[in-house]
Amino acid sequence: MTQTPFESSDTVRSAKPLRYVQLAKLDQPLALELGGQLADVTVAYETYGELNAAHDNAVLVCHAISGDSHVAQHNPEDESGWWDIAVGPGKVIDTNRYFVICPNLLGGCRGTTGPGSVNPATGKPYGRDFPIITVGDMVEVQRRLLDKLGVSQLLAVIGGSLGGHQALTWAIRYPDDVRGVVALATSARLTSQALAFDVVGRNAILRDPHFHVGQYYDRPDRPAVGLALARMIGHITYLSREAMNEKFEADRLKPRDVAIEFEKRFSVGSYLGYQGAKFVERFDANSYLTLSVAMDLFDLGSTPEALATALRSARARWLIASFTSDWLFPPDQSRDIVNALIANNAPVSYCNIQSSCGHDAFLLPNDLAVYGEMTRTFLDHLAPAAKARPAVKDEAHGPTSIFHQHRLDYEHIAELIPPGASVLDLGCGSGTFLAGLRETNHRRLVGIELDEQKILNGVSRGLDVIQADLNKGLGVFASGQFDCVVLSQTLQAVQDVEGVLTEMVRIGRTCIVSIPNFGYHRLRKMLAETGRAPKSAGVLHYEWYNTPNIRFFTIADFEDFCRQQNIQVHRRVALDTEAGVEVFEHPNLNADLAIFVISRP
Amino acid sequence: MTQTPFESSDTVRSAKPLRYVQLAKLDQPLALELGGQLADVTVAYETYGELNAAHDNAVLVCHAISGDSHVAQHNPEDESGWWDIAVGPGKVIDTNRYFVICPNLLGGCRGTTGPGSVNPATGKPYGRDFPIITVGDMVEVQRRLLDKLGVSQLLAVIGGSLGGHQALTWAIRYPDDVRGVVALATSARLTSQALAFDVVGRNAILRDPHFHVGQYYDRPDRPAVGLALARMIGHITYLSREAMNEKFEADRLKPRDVAIEFEKRFSVGSYLGYQGAKFVERFDANSYLTLSVAMDLFDLGSTPEALATALRSARARWLIASFTSDWLFPPDQSRDIVNALIANNAPVSYCNIQSSCGHDAFLLPNDLAVYGEMTRTFLDHLAPAAKARPAVKDEAHGPTSIFHQHRLDYEHIAELIPPGASVLDLGCGSGTFLAGLRETNHRRLVGIELDEQKILNGVSRGLDVIQADLNKGLGVFASGQFDCVVLSQTLQAVQDVEGVLTEMVRIGRTCIVSIPNFGYHRLRKMLAETGRAPKSAGVLHYEWYNTPNIRFFTIADFEDFCRQQNIQVHRRVALDTEAGVEVFEHPNLNADLAIFVISRP
Repeated sequence: MTQTPFESSDTVRSAKPLRYVQLAKLDQPLALELGGQLADVTVAYETYGELNAAHDNAVLVCHAISGDSHVAQHNPEDESGWWDIAVGPGKVIDTNRYFVICPNLLGGCRGTTGPGSVNPATGKPYGRDFPIITVGDMVEVQRRLLDKLGVSQLLAVIGGSLGGHQALTWAIRYPDDVRGVVALATSARLTSQALAFDVVGRNAILRDPHFHVGQYYDRPDRPAVGLALARMIGHITYLSREAMNEKFEADRLKPRDVAIEFEKRFSVGSYLGYQGAKFVERFDANSYLTLSVAMDLFDLGSTPEALATALRSARARWLIASFTSDWLFPPDQSRDIVNALIANNAPVSYCNIQSSCGHDAFLLPNDLAVYGEMTRTFLDHLAPAAKARPAVKDEAHGPTSIFHQHRLDYEHIAELIPPGASVLDLGCGSGTFLAGLRETNHRRLVGIELDEQKILNGVSRGLDVIQADLNKGLGVFASGQFDCVVLSQTLQAVQDVEGVLTEMVRIGRTCIVSIPNFGYHRLRKMLAETGRAPKSAGVLHYEWYNTPNIRFFTIADFEDFCRQQNIQVHRRVALDTEAGVEVFEHPNLNADLAIFVISRP
Repeated sequence: MTQTPFESSDTVRSAKPLRYVQLAKLDQPLALELGGQLADVTVAYETYGELNAAHDNAVLVCHAISGDSHVAQHNPEDESGWWDIAVGPGKVIDTNRYFVICPNLLGGCRGTTGPGSVNPATGKPYGRDFPIITVGDMVEVQRRLLDKLGVSQLLAVIGGSLGGHQALTWAIRYPDDVRGVVALATSARLTSQALAFDVVGRNAILRDPHFHVGQYYDRPDRPAVGLALARMIGHITYLSREAMNEKFEADRLKPRDVAIEFEKRFSVGSYLGYQGAKFVERFDANSYLTLSVAMDLFDLGSTPEALATALRSARARWLIASFTSDWLFPPDQSRDIVNALIANNAPVSYCNIQSSCGHDAFLLPNDLAVYGEMTRTFLDHLAPAAKARPAVKDEAHGPTSIFHQHRLDYEHIAELIPPGASVLDLGCGSGTFLAGLRETNHRRLVGIELDEQKILNGVSRGLDVIQADLNKGLGVFASGQFDCVVLSQTLQAVQDVEGVLTEMVRIGRTCIVSIPNFGYHRLRKMLAETGRAPKSAGVLHYEWYNTPNIRFFTIADFEDFCRQQNIQVHRRVALDTEAGVEVFEHPNLNADLAIFVISRP
């Protein structure tokens, strides 16, 4: 069978050795985290591109449980790699610019030392004698490999799923060696549900009559049924319900004619059976056990505090992305990591990408325009040479119109922010305001935004933008965490006004709010004289039935509210934006926009 | 081991025969839907309560894949039943009022004929020779059992999961014999994902070396590992991710000390291993295969049209409930059934109950206050004697205050509706308005509501209430499906005004909309003179920062909108509700509420 009859995110790799794999032997035995050691560790790896003279363009790509070192083709004739869509010349991880290294994991079966390797103590395969290893051990092996390659610093570590676990571990263990981390569809620990599926998969292997407590290498049969069952379970968890329905609903009762010894009554069964059977050809059951236990043991802490503590040493800049339909590594788990980084004041961008592809999304082209572009521009800004490039390039990926839109309140707000203050911008859009502040030497700038495309725009400007819903996502910020919190022309579109303002004055030592004023004389007149819902230019240009504005209030209403809530108004700047002037007399009547500097005593 | 160390929704039933099981032999061989027949079919069943003289109080409870006839205890000394929380004297399915019958399924292993039964043709257990059966065959056996018991009509058929499949089949096959259907956590067919998990479970059994192509009954070993693996997979899918986290997060690395031959590294593993091992003691692998294939083959149609066609014969009244965290039978699948019933103009109530309990929710006490009460009151109104009972009893389960609230617009709207018209009330609340209409002989009344408690109130009044979000849930209604669609004092709280109004005039031949008028002179004056956001009594009594009203418009605005949208205004009733009078002069100035009769030509 030369061609797969199924599309799959999983590259159906032949079992034959890969052509471009290089091997490195570690000089010293490897002491293991949970005790014991491994002598004579070999690492299989592949590299792409060239290490530059400054040695500052190395990118480590970490693979997931069933991957290997062959992340991409080395040339058009080469066998396909598991992430060809993202790694290559001109691609997201541009091998013309970056020196990409992808090692096979410790414990694996694709060249790096694992349970199928010969145990130097016995001259036979380790089998059951292969020790329990951790993600930390895997990273240790990678660190030593990089030493051998003369790479002391990494521009970035990139990985999804178990690859993300490695990336997190890198940032924690080698804070000085990692400039940036891209962690996709990952977590600080598995959910109990994900762990449960792993347990069942392992039980299928362990109870396979051909397993022989792991010493099957010299026997005629291998625990193929158990491994195939484990793979089938895994495969279901990698796909979303939507994706499976799309794939198998139409012809549910028309199984593909594949030569497998599994149930073929349903089309999805023939698919899973095929995936299971192919997996067995290229993967070792003991490696599967070893790697899945390592993944299940990975645990940066079950509480927000423990996780923040675990991440405290990290000094990297972070890009974290989850996928809405990923139920194996659900988005909340990525948010937990983001929240811990926020607690540590670490620079982080985060987006929960709208996707129907499930956990596999990070391996598939469907959402590459989002996670790929975020990764590309994130790497752009990590690279030391980033500032030297012309600014236009930075903005080329997003719409440009917004950058030229005149926002009078931005200028005033910027003037109200003390020099050098840290700033949190709630509803930051594409980051226009924050990008302006960056020029005036503010040390920490963070944006909150809900819209995916705007987050991408912000990240492509080199900003830290975190996806969150203002109505419920601010609890993660500590009291007084920012010098200044900004909410510009957004309050009128907020559902939970009280909640957002209360959170704002908790988080910011000073807060700046700009609001459209429905007390403006032209708006009053419109309702009073024409009997029509008032509208105007700017944020009030919408019709009553399609406006994003859902709160209608005046300067006086807002000031009343602050008084009731014990929020102090330090300063008010009232503007008539039509005339382009500041208003000093009867602002509630004469201003269409007001800016308040507020705080809670 | 006499006590289970784990809480579980699954009653860990001993393998010994149940005390109160009765057996019935079918008189004729059973011709099977997919071909072949079964001679000498025995049905094991249990009954509770008494069949009344009118023979109209029989309730059939259908069990799910691993259940049996023992739905509840027969007395306090009896072994616990799988639905003790719902079935018994004074309970949701009140055995003081109803005659409850629960048969074990055809193909099962708890008394009814199944693969472990003796094949009269060979004198040995059927094993692999047991034919493929369908849910239809199961229902046929139940129909024949009821004939033997002298039960020709059922007040209701009730079932969850596979039990729901049987309930649906009953309503389709025996439309004259079923007054009501309660279908919980069920579907018209499995998702591809659910089917995939079943396939893997079956493969685990089929490839167990002790399976011996199903002829294991006279051998020392049974395919226990395969069946246990299938059960473990199933168990994960019955629980929600939240529920598993809650159960196993705290002590992830502290497995319970249970005597099992499965991996015990993690607490969740010891739990699953225990569940798997216990299941094997009481369940037969061949029955598991038989029942899971029957479930996987159950298919009322993959398109909305096919499903509506499949349900066309049904004449029952329906109560359908799903659970938000059920990912095995996800809520969308219940909605598909509801939508098909709506297309057929069948009387149906539906609620997607907020729950963290996953698919198992319908077996657990956590959400009984909702699904149980809905079932109880639904049965109340099904019973022929329902009308004889005093009305207070009917309303005792919900809050009573709302029934006395004066709503001037209700009276006017009721007068505008032609006698006997079918009415769809968008945002029906607890059903006050519809309950009023019922008294005036309207033939079809349906309410749409989002709030769970209000839906329960509506159902407890005997109304058909369907849970949906007005902003996106109206597409299921056909054009012109109702004589009249009502939207009373709700438009100001709707996000997608255009969408809702467009849908409304599509569905209703006539539509009635009542709106608060922001053009009312007191409101204009408030903004103009005091510079404060206008507020008033009734639906406008909220503060600007916490009002549910997000659309601010006047009578004139609304009429403009109708003109633009080619919506014809047939009549307008303007009211000054403070004075309690109809307004004829300058309504946009003098009325605080207006009612419009509209339609699209």
